[in-house]
Amino acid sequence: MKGGGYYSRVNRGTKQVISDALDLVETAIEGMLIEDSDRVFAIADYGAADGGTSYELVRNIIGMVRARAPKRPIVVNYNDLPKNDFSALFEMIHGEDEILGVKSYLKDYDNVFILASGTSFYRQAFPDNSIDLGFSSTALHWLSEKPGIISDHIHAVGAKGSELKAFAVQAKKDWQTILLHRAKELVPGGKLVFINFCIDEQGRYLGNTAGVNMLDTYNAIWLELVAEGTVTNEEYTNVVFPQFYRTGEEFAAPFSDPNGEVCKAGLNLDQIESRVVECPHAATYRETKDLDSFVRAYVSMLRSWSESTFYNGLDPSRPPDERNRIVDLFYGKYEERVRRTPEEHAMDHVHYYMMISKANVP
Amino acid sequence: MKGGGYYSRVNRGTKQVISDALDLVETAIEGMLIEDSDRVFAIADYGAADGGTSYELVRNIIGMVRARAPKRPIVVNYNDLPKNDFSALFEMIHGEDEILGVKSYLKDYDNVFILASGTSFYRQAFPDNSIDLGFSSTALHWLSEKPGIISDHIHAVGAKGSELKAFAVQAKKDWQTILLHRAKELVPGGKLVFINFCIDEQGRYLGNTAGVNMLDTYNAIWLELVAEGTVTNEEYTNVVFPQFYRTGEEFAAPFSDPNGEVCKAGLNLDQIESRVVECPHAATYRETKDLDSFVRAYVSMLRSWSESTFYNGLDPSRPPDERNRIVDLFYGKYEERVRRTPEEHAMDHVHYYMMISKANVP
Repeated sequence: MKGGGYYSRVNRGTKQVISDALDLVETAIEGMLIEDSDRVFAIADYGAADGGTSYELVRNIIGMVRARAPKRPIVVNYNDLPKNDFSALFEMIHGEDEILGVKSYLKDYDNVFILASGTSFYRQAFPDNSIDLGFSSTALHWLSEKPGIISDHIHAVGAKGSELKAFAVQAKKDWQTILLHRAKELVPGGKLVFINFCIDEQGRYLGNTAGVNMLDTYNAIWLELVAEGTVTNEEYTNVVFPQFYRTGEEFAAPFSDPNGEVCKAGLNLDQIESRVVECPHAATYRETKDLDSFVRAYVSMLRSWSESTFYNGLDPSRPPDERNRIVDLFYGKYEERVRRTPEEHAMDHVHYYMMISKANVP
Repeated sequence: MKGGGYYSRVNRGTKQVISDALDLVETAIEGMLIEDSDRVFAIADYGAADGGTSYELVRNIIGMVRARAPKRPIVVNYNDLPKNDFSALFEMIHGEDEILGVKSYLKDYDNVFILASGTSFYRQAFPDNSIDLGFSSTALHWLSEKPGIISDHIHAVGAKGSELKAFAVQAKKDWQTILLHRAKELVPGGKLVFINFCIDEQGRYLGNTAGVNMLDTYNAIWLELVAEGTVTNEEYTNVVFPQFYRTGEEFAAPFSDPNGEVCKAGLNLDQIESRVVECPHAATYRETKDLDSFVRAYVSMLRSWSESTFYNGLDPSRPPDERNRIVDLFYGKYEERVRRTPEEHAMDHVHYYMMISKANVP
């Protein structure tokens, strides 16, 4: 993934998804006893990337906590994988430049401290009972490992039979692992607000709400390159996003078994609902009818989060130039398709928004 | 500064300096009441770079704390400037590779958590009363700003008169700022172990213990490039390390004024002594007499921490290639000098090692 704020600049949609979570965060904080303490109020953003998409939400959280508990120091912990560009994150928040048109929240609030955690969210990242409010958006669909191959698609949404089953089993196990680590990290009475890619009640998912199915398009173009002899069969099979879009039932399951580990750890699912955030690029196009801009902006955005998966699927014996050329060809073909039927293309976001609490008396 | 562990691989001397601080750290921990608590024991490494040089010391600290307080979670906070390569640090500590021949301390100790702080040590980086043991090695000689020019040298050790005075005044102010922020961060009874570049009681300092004076050599070669017409007068003046090597008196001064802010903040200087750590490259050369290896390894090490200062002093209108060529020429001339009188060259480290406590009752 490119550094230097690239991710949050290109991904306006992801930012909108997080803005849409403000009501949940308000409800979460309203439900917490935060006045009767002078200890640190600790926020964790799990899978924060460069911190740009959650930036305004974090500012809002700081404001809400400070209004009710003016003396409490606030620590914002940005969590992501070790290789994440934490320098870009620190430079943005500590820097003098405006962030998305506003100055850093560190200029407006004192007694706020920024830390980075480079621990996978599949491990415990913070001490027991140390996080007051955990947040995660568009991150927990990444599985801890790829549980197998998918013969005829590049994503689990296109998997069938035993191949689908292997992904579902891994996703179930991973969801439990994520929840149990967070249960330890949360203070009693602490809360989690999670926004997760999903398959919703109507079978919709990312880039599959109406018109062209984005992930099917990826697959079709990748197969085209195989048919043309550009990509080998082995390279075709190499490309599988290690992701799973869970259903509402899959998200809720661990909370409904009172003898299960998640309930015994004190976690309760307070709220869950699906929400669709419209693709901002497609919305702009409907207004402006500027086809060139749409094609360019839309495919750049797709490319920002998918490019490395296709690149890494290509045989390492190919020189980097050649791998780049094939990836260029791939997104060029995607651009052609968008140009032919622009109104059919949109990467609408489909997420379950959920609020989870840890019992006050564990 | 190059990332990916380059700094700690090249700087064996700096690592030896930190190993030499083990007795101070032992004394510091012995003097702390750590058993009677189940709260987090928090360590901060101020100016940690890639975490490689302090790695073994941190492992030792974890071992000592865990032995006396087995239940306490331990958090290691690595602090440095936002641009520091925190990914290299996280990848090293969370990775599967051995670090300097041993596996990560995270494999040996559970309930240990790693965080990064990208806040300048000239600001408060952690909440009040949250750090148990603060550590810093070979970092606090960096001033918060360059307080002026030095007409005829590249470092304050060669400054005179009002130019020297400006640096000394800045260094005094900066030392107080550093101490007051740390006083807030430390828990009552918490301790700091600081190892700082200095001018010792005998007037010795880094690379100036006997034989050739390293910083004078930098200056002489930089002047040679001016005389040859390669470097302009303006570029000569541009290059000033924004550093100051304080004397023992300068380090001790804020602690000896009972009405001063540092004393009022509860800080006490428990121990201060100068120590010289011999240049490992020069020591190896005395044994092996392998001149080529010495010249290469020694000047690489000098280059690792000084290169960016000379490069950035060159006029930005010069193309990068040209700036690189001039910097290559500079270190080439240094290599020639080492080759001519190898036994005269050594970058011995000269530090004050100090232990500072915050009063138990603030």
